[in-house]
Amino acid sequence: MIDKGMLITVSGPSGSGKGTVLGELVKKRDDVKISVSMTTRQNRNGEIDGINYYFVSKEYFEKKINEGSMLEYAQYAGNYYGTPKEPVDEMLKAGKAVILEIDVQGADKIKEIYPDVIRIFIMPPSASVLERRLRGRNTEDEETINHRLVIAKGEMKMASEYDFIVINDKLDSAVKDVETIIDAERLKASRNKIFLSEVINNV
Amino acid sequence: MIDKGMLITVSGPSGSGKGTVLGELVKKRDDVKISVSMTTRQNRNGEIDGINYYFVSKEYFEKKINEGSMLEYAQYAGNYYGTPKEPVDEMLKAGKAVILEIDVQGADKIKEIYPDVIRIFIMPPSASVLERRLRGRNTEDEETINHRLVIAKGEMKMASEYDFIVINDKLDSAVKDVETIIDAERLKASRNKIFLSEVINNV
Repeated sequence: MIDKGMLITVSGPSGSGKGTVLGELVKKRDDVKISVSMTTRQNRNGEIDGINYYFVSKEYFEKKINEGSMLEYAQYAGNYYGTPKEPVDEMLKAGKAVILEIDVQGADKIKEIYPDVIRIFIMPPSASVLERRLRGRNTEDEETINHRLVIAKGEMKMASEYDFIVINDKLDSAVKDVETIIDAERLKASRNKIFLSEVINNV
Repeated sequence: MIDKGMLITVSGPSGSGKGTVLGELVKKRDDVKISVSMTTRQNRNGEIDGINYYFVSKEYFEKKINEGSMLEYAQYAGNYYGTPKEPVDEMLKAGKAVILEIDVQGADKIKEIYPDVIRIFIMPPSASVLERRLRGRNTEDEETINHRLVIAKGEMKMASEYDFIVINDKLDSAVKDVETIIDAERLKASRNKIFLSEVINNV
C-alpha cells in the first residue's frame, strides 16, 4: 500500500539527547532503522563493528569515495566518517524509515542528493537545560563548556530551516514525536499513489 | 510555544465517511474546530443555526460576498453555500486546527488564499466498499448509483494532488490518522520559530 521507505536525517546540538531518542525509537519500531556510519578511526571501548560503526581502513574508505559509494563523508581529526549508500538504499527498498544521525553540514549534503529527505532537529527544552546537560556529563573547564555552547548556538540557528523540531524535554514524549512525524509521512498522498490507482481503476 | 493555528481542508467522495470521521475527531480534541458553513437554503430536519449551518437570507449572503467576507462560496440548485472568513480567522488566532469540510473545487480556492493550508483527502478502503456504502444508504435506482460512482471516481482522481490521504476503513483508525497529521504539523519548524528564538537568545 505504501510506495516505498523514507529517508530521515536527525540533527541537534550536543546536549539535545538525540542519540538517546533514536536508541529508544528503534527499540519500539521495527519499521525504523538507523544507518550505521563508516569510519577509519580506531574502534574503542568495546564498540562493535557493524553496530556502532563500520570500522575500515583508510584505503578502503577512499576506494568507496572514488567508487561513488558514499552518500556523504567528512574528515575530523585526521579520520574519515561517512554514510555508505548501499545499506541505506536496501533499507529504503524494503519500505523502512531510515534515519541518519548527522550534523548540520551532513544533513545539507543529503538534502542535495535526496530532495525528499525529512529533516528533524532535536532541541533541548531551554538554554538552561542545555547548559546543565553539557556541564553534567563531563569535567571540562569553563572555557571548553563555553566553546560547546557557542557551537550549539550556531547549530540551533539552522533549526528553523529544518522540516520538524522535536523538543527533548521528556524522553518518552520526544520519541513519540518522532514516531508521529514518521506516521504522518506515511499518510502523504505522494506515498500512496499505488493504493489510489488501485481504488480508482476498480470503480 | 506554537506560533499559531493551522487551516485544514478535508475532502473526499460521498461514501468516504468524512463527516463521521470529523464528528468523532472534534469530540476527542479540544484544539480542533470545524468551520460552520453559511447557506441560503432552508433549514431542514431540525438542523440548528450556528451548528449545522449559518442560515441566512440571499441578500445577507450577497452583502458578505461584496464585503469580501467569504473565504469561498459556490451555488448549488439556486442556493449559496460558503465559508465565512471571520470565525475561521478568530479560531486560527486562538491556535486551533480549523477544519473546512469542503469539495475538491472549494479546496483549490482555499489553497490559493492560504498557501499553507493542509489538504487531507478521505478515501474509502476499496472500490467495492465505496459501492456498498453508496448502495447501502439509499434506495436509489441503478442509474443514480452509477452516476454517483462516476462523480466519486472523478474526485478520487484529484486525491494524488492532496497533501495527505486518510483511508477510512475502520473509523477509530481514520480519526487517529487525522490526529497524527495535526500533531506532526504542530512539530513543523516553521510553526516553532518563537520557541527557537527564545532558546537561542538565552544561550
